[in-house]
Amino acid sequence: MVGGGEGAYIGNIHRIAARLDGEWELVAGAFDVDPEKGRSFALSQGMHPDRAYGDYLALIAGEVAREDRVDAVAICTPNFTHYPIAKALIEAGFDVICEKPLTATLEDAVALDSLTRESGRFVGVTYTYSGYPMVHEARVRIAAGEIGIVRSLQVEYPLEWMATAIESQGNAQAAWRTDPKRNGRGGSIGDIGTHAYHLAGFVTGLKLESLTADLATFVEGRALDDNAHVMMRYEGGARGLLWSSQVALGNSNGVRLRVFGEKGSFQWFQEQPNELVYAPLGGRVQTIKRGSDEVSEDARLRSRTPPGHPEGYLEAFANLYASFAEAIRARNEERAPGLLGQNLPLAYDGLKGVAFVEAVVDSAESNEPVWLTPVAV
Amino acid sequence: MVGGGEGAYIGNIHRIAARLDGEWELVAGAFDVDPEKGRSFALSQGMHPDRAYGDYLALIAGEVAREDRVDAVAICTPNFTHYPIAKALIEAGFDVICEKPLTATLEDAVALDSLTRESGRFVGVTYTYSGYPMVHEARVRIAAGEIGIVRSLQVEYPLEWMATAIESQGNAQAAWRTDPKRNGRGGSIGDIGTHAYHLAGFVTGLKLESLTADLATFVEGRALDDNAHVMMRYEGGARGLLWSSQVALGNSNGVRLRVFGEKGSFQWFQEQPNELVYAPLGGRVQTIKRGSDEVSEDARLRSRTPPGHPEGYLEAFANLYASFAEAIRARNEERAPGLLGQNLPLAYDGLKGVAFVEAVVDSAESNEPVWLTPVAV
Amino acid sequence: MVGGGEGAYIGNIHRIAARLDGEWELVAGAFDVDPEKGRSFALSQGMHPDRAYGDYLALIAGEVAREDRVDAVAICTPNFTHYPIAKALIEAGFDVICEKPLTATLEDAVALDSLTRESGRFVGVTYTYSGYPMVHEARVRIAAGEIGIVRSLQVEYPLEWMATAIESQGNAQAAWRTDPKRNGRGGSIGDIGTHAYHLAGFVTGLKLESLTADLATFVEGRALDDNAHVMMRYEGGARGLLWSSQVALGNSNGVRLRVFGEKGSFQWFQEQPNELVYAPLGGRVQTIKRGSDEVSEDARLRSRTPPGHPEGYLEAFANLYASFAEAIRARNEERAPGLLGQNLPLAYDGLKGVAFVEAVVDSAESNEPVWLTPVAV
Amino acid sequence: MVGGGEGAYIGNIHRIAARLDGEWELVAGAFDVDPEKGRSFALSQGMHPDRAYGDYLALIAGEVAREDRVDAVAICTPNFTHYPIAKALIEAGFDVICEKPLTATLEDAVALDSLTRESGRFVGVTYTYSGYPMVHEARVRIAAGEIGIVRSLQVEYPLEWMATAIESQGNAQAAWRTDPKRNGRGGSIGDIGTHAYHLAGFVTGLKLESLTADLATFVEGRALDDNAHVMMRYEGGARGLLWSSQVALGNSNGVRLRVFGEKGSFQWFQEQPNELVYAPLGGRVQTIKRGSDEVSEDARLRSRTPPGHPEGYLEAFANLYASFAEAIRARNEERAPGLLGQNLPLAYDGLKGVAFVEAVVDSAESNEPVWLTPVAV
Repeated sequence: MVGGGEGAYIGNIHRIAARLDGEWELVAGAFDVDPEKGRSFALSQGMHPDRAYGDYLALIAGEVAREDRVDAVAICTPNFTHYPIAKALIEAGFDVICEKPLTATLEDAVALDSLTRESGRFVGVTYTYSGYPMVHEARVRIAAGEIGIVRSLQVEYPLEWMATAIESQGNAQAAWRTDPKRNGRGGSIGDIGTHAYHLAGFVTGLKLESLTADLATFVEGRALDDNAHVMMRYEGGARGLLWSSQVALGNSNGVRLRVFGEKGSFQWFQEQPNELVYAPLGGRVQTIKRGSDEVSEDARLRSRTPPGHPEGYLEAFANLYASFAEAIRARNEERAPGLLGQNLPLAYDGLKGVAFVEAVVDSAESNEPVWLTPVAV
Repeated sequence: MVGGGEGAYIGNIHRIAARLDGEWELVAGAFDVDPEKGRSFALSQGMHPDRAYGDYLALIAGEVAREDRVDAVAICTPNFTHYPIAKALIEAGFDVICEKPLTATLEDAVALDSLTRESGRFVGVTYTYSGYPMVHEARVRIAAGEIGIVRSLQVEYPLEWMATAIESQGNAQAAWRTDPKRNGRGGSIGDIGTHAYHLAGFVTGLKLESLTADLATFVEGRALDDNAHVMMRYEGGARGLLWSSQVALGNSNGVRLRVFGEKGSFQWFQEQPNELVYAPLGGRVQTIKRGSDEVSEDARLRSRTPPGHPEGYLEAFANLYASFAEAIRARNEERAPGLLGQNLPLAYDGLKGVAFVEAVVDSAESNEPVWLTPVAV
Repeated sequence: MVGGGEGAYIGNIHRIAARLDGEWELVAGAFDVDPEKGRSFALSQGMHPDRAYGDYLALIAGEVAREDRVDAVAICTPNFTHYPIAKALIEAGFDVICEKPLTATLEDAVALDSLTRESGRFVGVTYTYSGYPMVHEARVRIAAGEIGIVRSLQVEYPLEWMATAIESQGNAQAAWRTDPKRNGRGGSIGDIGTHAYHLAGFVTGLKLESLTADLATFVEGRALDDNAHVMMRYEGGARGLLWSSQVALGNSNGVRLRVFGEKGSFQWFQEQPNELVYAPLGGRVQTIKRGSDEVSEDARLRSRTPPGHPEGYLEAFANLYASFAEAIRARNEERAPGLLGQNLPLAYDGLKGVAFVEAVVDSAESNEPVWLTPVAV
Repeated sequence: MVGGGEGAYIGNIHRIAARLDGEWELVAGAFDVDPEKGRSFALSQGMHPDRAYGDYLALIAGEVAREDRVDAVAICTPNFTHYPIAKALIEAGFDVICEKPLTATLEDAVALDSLTRESGRFVGVTYTYSGYPMVHEARVRIAAGEIGIVRSLQVEYPLEWMATAIESQGNAQAAWRTDPKRNGRGGSIGDIGTHAYHLAGFVTGLKLESLTADLATFVEGRALDDNAHVMMRYEGGARGLLWSSQVALGNSNGVRLRVFGEKGSFQWFQEQPNELVYAPLGGRVQTIKRGSDEVSEDARLRSRTPPGHPEGYLEAFANLYASFAEAIRARNEERAPGLLGQNLPLAYDGLKGVAFVEAVVDSAESNEPVWLTPVAV
């Protein structure tokens, strides 16, 4: 692992997720920009001193030299460093698991995607919400035509924790998220809107064609948007509405997706992730439960307990790690991946996410909004 | 009452609402375009034969001639007839209660609003959702600064009943709603989006400045939009997102408003109307209940039962009728109206609603969407 | 109407309910134990001075003498006066609508039930919750065998408003409810537990066979129970659990019924009364909505608006008044009542409710609880 | 680990829970009554062949002989084998983590509890629901007097999966649960009612004084109860109602606890475990969220993610394993345990659970139910 040391929220999540199903073992790391802090953190996590590295270059050098070199490296560093680190790892022959956004600029994202294709290395991106079993359930059912042609979708990702200027009050998490240099051009849209965009496309299989966006910054002195409204048009005519906000008081992590088709609708809410609400044309609103006999093999493989025994965020994250393991294993064994190794977020999805954020910012910055067709989205 | 006879859904709602608090008595009507059917319906409702009129002109003539002439006339006819009927009633000196939209065209709306001002006649418009006590509660609290400056709002009005082409299968309610001649230029946006627009402005007191809209028609052969997405900018910088849909499977009458301010947020959902969800900055999500000791006098006056004894749509409608009664009584008595006669939807609100729909359709029809400043909205 | 004057909560509910559907007109009353206050209240409600009576005897005398005498009289007085007033009215030939409990003692209840049968007079009892359309929907579906043989039920009625000794702080509503002389032997069990008991029997059609009860009084100085737990056995083997409480903080009017059968279950919650939750064996949890096309004729007749337009407590109460009207009309016309005039709470149901309360108190008072078979329950 | 091999649901849960926080490593096991299947399962889980034991006696012999012997052994075998296995392990000097119920008979439970005290060995019992952070939050707040003296509680544990006779259709999980020999005298009350009983006592700190119970068996041919109703009296006067059911259609794993005090109430529902609903006297119903700044240190230590990122059943189970680790470590280091090692379910809690089940069955079996004071509960 690179980054994710002492005090880093997401680093610990990656470690739990990797460990949860017993598929991965964390054996080496360069956990901090401060080499000493990084090494000391590595020891505290039980790494062997030889594999407690001071930085990612040392990690690469050290691991390349070992017979029991690591299978893959997770990148949990600030956005703008994703590209150089990933590039170095790929060129050294490592598979990569990268936090979203893939990169801080579209240019870097395009380059990294190309490098991935050419190198044959695996690059998974942790779009967490696509790890949830009932998100897969919705995807499978929509792909099977259960709600007919998708007409419209509503996706939202409201948060409340940045409702005041905590970035100027010593909150490091908020500080880098509101700094264009470290975070890229998008504020809420880059941090969380991109999750919402990915989720909508992942579940529906729809390709975004154009968008019009309105960005706002409500907290005084903040350099990036903290509230984004986006109207979207998908290939084939479906319409979408996306809202992301970091200042929506009352919302802890309110990812919600509603998809309306000709013959039915699905609703999924991340804070009650074990249920998928289904409303068929002419029928009753009803609940499909994770773990029940009726769910698809795709959802079953991402589930550990029966209905009523809640699984949540860490299990979804673990599902991504399990998917990455299966995809890498299949490639190594030169076979097609099983269901668990399919439909997972890769470098190209990361590129699309970065392109989406660029398009949103372009649309909002042009005084007269226009319908855009982002490259490659 | 004009219109609202046999088989008319909204006519019966008006009658129950008027009767519920014992403030109004229905004594005369021209209930149907077919004079005979209208008269016979009037008799079935217990009108005296002298006051069972064949059409609205007869009603005007008959009532003007009586000493005990009616106090006000409710108009429940198709949209495009609102203007001529209201005009005739006002010119004959009657107060008017008019179904929304006020008129089918902006031109008519402007004319009717002017006529109202000049004549001194009362014209109330039944924007039903502004009759709910907890909607008033949110309005009062926002006006008192409880959530600080409003930053953004999300308002939606999804319905499912027109998800298929029922207008071509004999459903009269759907037929006039999808007919530009009878309904005006807006489909879902005119039928229900205008409710959402009014509700958002009513609760927040914000004035809409500009908007960008995307209209879609998903049911084949339908002449008007059945799904609308609107991004809104209010005076002072607040942003809004509005979604109306007649094809959102699973939604019966899903009016929902969420308002986010600097210091807190409110959420109100029409299908659970007795609760207002409040989230203060740094505090817990909590529920304010209709009927509880803490609610404002504005809400208390619009409430009949203690908490936990659900009141609903008919009571909200009755609140509008009670408000209209108080406003008319105050005018007649040349005094300021009590709280019940304040903050109620009048002709000018109806005009703003029509202007909003026009702006939305204009924005959507211009191939490259632009920010509009609708006249008088 | 007898009782229900100035400041009486339930009197106003009766008046709104009677008026809501236009079936009843309130034309006479003896509204208060204080004759002057009663007459003055009557005038304020628009009664003719001749029919603003000082007490119920005057009302009987006055109305008997009129050609346009009232059709029925509603009794909204304290529990212990129900019997003498009802008796006098019945003997004078009037039909009666009586608040629950039917009487304060079992003896009175048996006598009143007998008198009803012998006289042919109509005596309806306002078990409000049996007026809700989705309660009828559950009843109809269970009777049709939709969930098979009923195995068990959970019914509860928690309230919070008497969590402190408000009866000694000037709250008149609480004062008579905690006074054995005016209220009878049951506290929470008599005030609200009897509603829960009736609801459970009404929906399932089951006959109670025996019970074991545990009563508690948590507020110091209170003379009657404010919390009741009851285990019930029904004929045929079904089991039930009943909980009533006046001190359950957080609960406004939390009537909830869950019925579990061999093939499915129903759940109904009074604070969301427009929905009936249904869970079939091997199927998904799903929602049946009031107003939808699929509901029974029994529910449809008790409904005024489409799904999503909430109806509530007042509409349920109005449904009882409409049912009473139809039952009386049918008797007068010597025909079978329509569906609206069937399955409504009558004197015998009131008697069963009183017997239930007696049995509960008997069980709780006997130091070693025993299974009882209450007379006639 | 003893038991919990191929196809055993709870064994896998134990393994994930033990691994989740990186506190435990599974290195040895006797996973199956069939020695060969057990050994082969051990190998599949990555055990060293030397530690893939054929039965628990071999495991004890093998581990005792090693320097790196296991720290503790988890027992996941059928109920009636808990006692002999635990006894042998304790006598050999091992700490034990035991599935609930502690034993199948009260006699065994008393013996095991005594043995634990005498030996100084640690015996943790996996009452899973006491691992949830918001259950601890309620416990801490009640202990601090936040809701005053507890008056009453409602606890329920409904399940649906045994609504038909699946035990006779090859379902092994149902088969041993309905077999008195393997399961003990209690059916639903022993399997899940005991969880509800423990949860109620754990959160409130109340000691049960007496109970009256009504057991029913609704599925034909079943030898044990599948539905239990229990009225409870606690020391100091609090009352409780407990319902457990294996035949409550619509309920996946519906553990719900409501506690009502003089000054407030708490409600916790296992299927939405990240929220604790709080209703203060005279205040609003409000939600306390896991992960928020306001929660106690007890809850914080049992939480890994911020609010809105759901944690669930596996994390609760992992919390028990982390608590066991801390308790064992503290004992070994001869220090007081930290907060994580306090308030955890031990042998005595297991004994109380067994005694509760016995008391319930005794009460139900005596034809005239009596108030019992179970030994040591």
